[in-house]
Amino acid sequence: MFAHGAPGTLYFDANSIGPMPLDAPERVRRLLDEGWRIARRRGWNTSDWLEQPRALGAAIAPIVGAHADDVIVCDSTSVNQYKLLRFALDAATCTGAASARNVIVLERTVFPTNRYVGEGIARAGHATLRDIDGPQDLDAALAPGDVAVVALSHVDYRSGRRLDMAAMNRIAHDHGALVLWDLSHSAGAVAVRLRDTDADLAIGCGYKYLCGGPGAPSLLYVHPRLQARAWPAIAGWMGHADLFAFEPHYLPAPGISRHLAGSPAVIANAAFGAAADIWAQVEPDALDARHRSLTDTLIDLLDAHCASFGIEVTSPREHARRGGHVSVRLAREDANIDALGQALVAAGVVVSTRKPDSLRFGVHPLTTRHADLWHAVERLTDVLRSERWRDARFAGPTK
Amino acid sequence: MFAHGAPGTLYFDANSIGPMPLDAPERVRRLLDEGWRIARRRGWNTSDWLEQPRALGAAIAPIVGAHADDVIVCDSTSVNQYKLLRFALDAATCTGAASARNVIVLERTVFPTNRYVGEGIARAGHATLRDIDGPQDLDAALAPGDVAVVALSHVDYRSGRRLDMAAMNRIAHDHGALVLWDLSHSAGAVAVRLRDTDADLAIGCGYKYLCGGPGAPSLLYVHPRLQARAWPAIAGWMGHADLFAFEPHYLPAPGISRHLAGSPAVIANAAFGAAADIWAQVEPDALDARHRSLTDTLIDLLDAHCASFGIEVTSPREHARRGGHVSVRLAREDANIDALGQALVAAGVVVSTRKPDSLRFGVHPLTTRHADLWHAVERLTDVLRSERWRDARFAGPTK
Repeated sequence: MFAHGAPGTLYFDANSIGPMPLDAPERVRRLLDEGWRIARRRGWNTSDWLEQPRALGAAIAPIVGAHADDVIVCDSTSVNQYKLLRFALDAATCTGAASARNVIVLERTVFPTNRYVGEGIARAGHATLRDIDGPQDLDAALAPGDVAVVALSHVDYRSGRRLDMAAMNRIAHDHGALVLWDLSHSAGAVAVRLRDTDADLAIGCGYKYLCGGPGAPSLLYVHPRLQARAWPAIAGWMGHADLFAFEPHYLPAPGISRHLAGSPAVIANAAFGAAADIWAQVEPDALDARHRSLTDTLIDLLDAHCASFGIEVTSPREHARRGGHVSVRLAREDANIDALGQALVAAGVVVSTRKPDSLRFGVHPLTTRHADLWHAVERLTDVLRSERWRDARFAGPTK
Repeated sequence: MFAHGAPGTLYFDANSIGPMPLDAPERVRRLLDEGWRIARRRGWNTSDWLEQPRALGAAIAPIVGAHADDVIVCDSTSVNQYKLLRFALDAATCTGAASARNVIVLERTVFPTNRYVGEGIARAGHATLRDIDGPQDLDAALAPGDVAVVALSHVDYRSGRRLDMAAMNRIAHDHGALVLWDLSHSAGAVAVRLRDTDADLAIGCGYKYLCGGPGAPSLLYVHPRLQARAWPAIAGWMGHADLFAFEPHYLPAPGISRHLAGSPAVIANAAFGAAADIWAQVEPDALDARHRSLTDTLIDLLDAHCASFGIEVTSPREHARRGGHVSVRLAREDANIDALGQALVAAGVVVSTRKPDSLRFGVHPLTTRHADLWHAVERLTDVLRSERWRDARFAGPTK
């Protein structure tokens, strides 16, 4: 189902860019030839171009535990984060609560773009940010009753720690607040249960584990009870109730579609379609079990072969508390995690590093094999034993 | 430089989807193979993926009369319209003017998505909209001194009427307001002179005359005097001053780059690159002269051969007042413009129609030949003479 990469290279970067489905190039080639070259503007009318954001959403919905009608694929993750933060602020105002809710709660370690987007809204004077140090502080942060939305990463981009989605939703709902989940490091890696955990809102990267292709559009989910609660932040024509009527005034589409703003990314969506067809056949529990087996094995191997060199697994040991990747650090005074990462890439193991000290193995349950884990740990052990990471060519900034 | 479409088909839909550059498929194929399949996450570090939004912007900048550093390509046109409307509202507040400026002025006939986006901002309580019937009313609408930004289509999507950019900018500036131009129906069709006319802000479709490919990202321009005036609406990590530092707080990039929000659309940008390389070699005045020659000829032919059947050219006669396409209507009691459009498409002339009565010939100066105009008018004459547009198969909704 997926294309092989370079021979001999082991890819542990699904947390950054997932593998390419085998038929993605042919789908894109056909779209360019039959759609762009031949059909041209007729493609809008005679192809599924306008339906793709909904069709892709419906295909990946089961893997994030959502109903087909509640997910779309569009825009970038940052843009969708912005759209749903604003939507949550508006929806909170529309509930008719006695006091205004205009606070956004963020975890201090959240992925930077999620905070930046919130800071932008706050700077415009439309919200106040409140930081928490971790999930244990959520209840207290919500106590004043002024919180509109809590923006949480389901899985932390450095440690790989996975939050308890059901518990967080329950705490937020008890205080009348919404939760916006970023699924970038869980969707397509482990089973996500948006509906079962009563999740309100979610966004997530399309090009990591979901394999939509470099820079692919992002997923956007809204619980049906909230879909009609407010206007979308960006009231574009693709979210209008009657797209080609060219009505003089905006009327939001009834369901999730109102969050579509501009024209769909037709070429990117053709590539994403190859992955979507695969996802439509994947059973979430099987995906989760496979991920567990792979990452448990990887952690065992790292413990057994690399601990003596100072490698410490920093991801949680319990699978339910862990997301897509396994993180390690090098517990030595003279550690240089970027250099170690580069040396490992040079040894044919494509990993990534994040400041201050995380080295990440992004495991993809649909393509990573158990044998790959053995070979990767073997190469890491060799790099550590030889101290090749001290080589001058790895000393510069990460490449 | 461009691929041929279907043999015998005449394409007059560059106002909807422009022609495909000959090497776009090969560029995309290579990106998928070398970038997605082989390089995977290393593409972010070792390729130009992160630079593409700026590189594409720099390549098309001359054709819209901008400096290379003042244009980027990203997101959809609707999203960019939103971003710059909000930016303009913030920039107006930041000027330290005595009275608050929170009014957005829109022409009543503006393209729907531009109005919808404004309505969304107004509904959230962050602006007030003021309609004008046409450019003659602009001065009066600005007189109260409360206008932050005037959002104008450079070329009207129905009539093809082109506004006098310099005159509109002057009137707005005299009243302390900014102008946000939508170049969707002029960029790549005629010479646009953003800097020469002292334009403040502009956005424009990437997949019409600019030939970026179906659903391509959109252009975004900000005059350098305004670039540092306010934060971008969507403060994403791609617009941070130090992208990979993962700083805890947002710090906007110094120039136009702050308007980049999320990850670039890498696959779409590879396709757009083929067009960008062509644009970098096109002389704006030559483009404009070629467009003038083509559309003048088309209008002459329509007058000479189709007027007797009730065809009226509704686009302005003077080229400086006209944008990318030539619009006609059928001045008959029993006219059905959609049916006429469909009959013409069936006759191999790909045009489009817009309610209530516009039939549009989107001429592309780089690919339309004078002979195409003769053949198109010949086929239109034949459809009109035979009254084939009354055929039942063309009676349904436009396909």
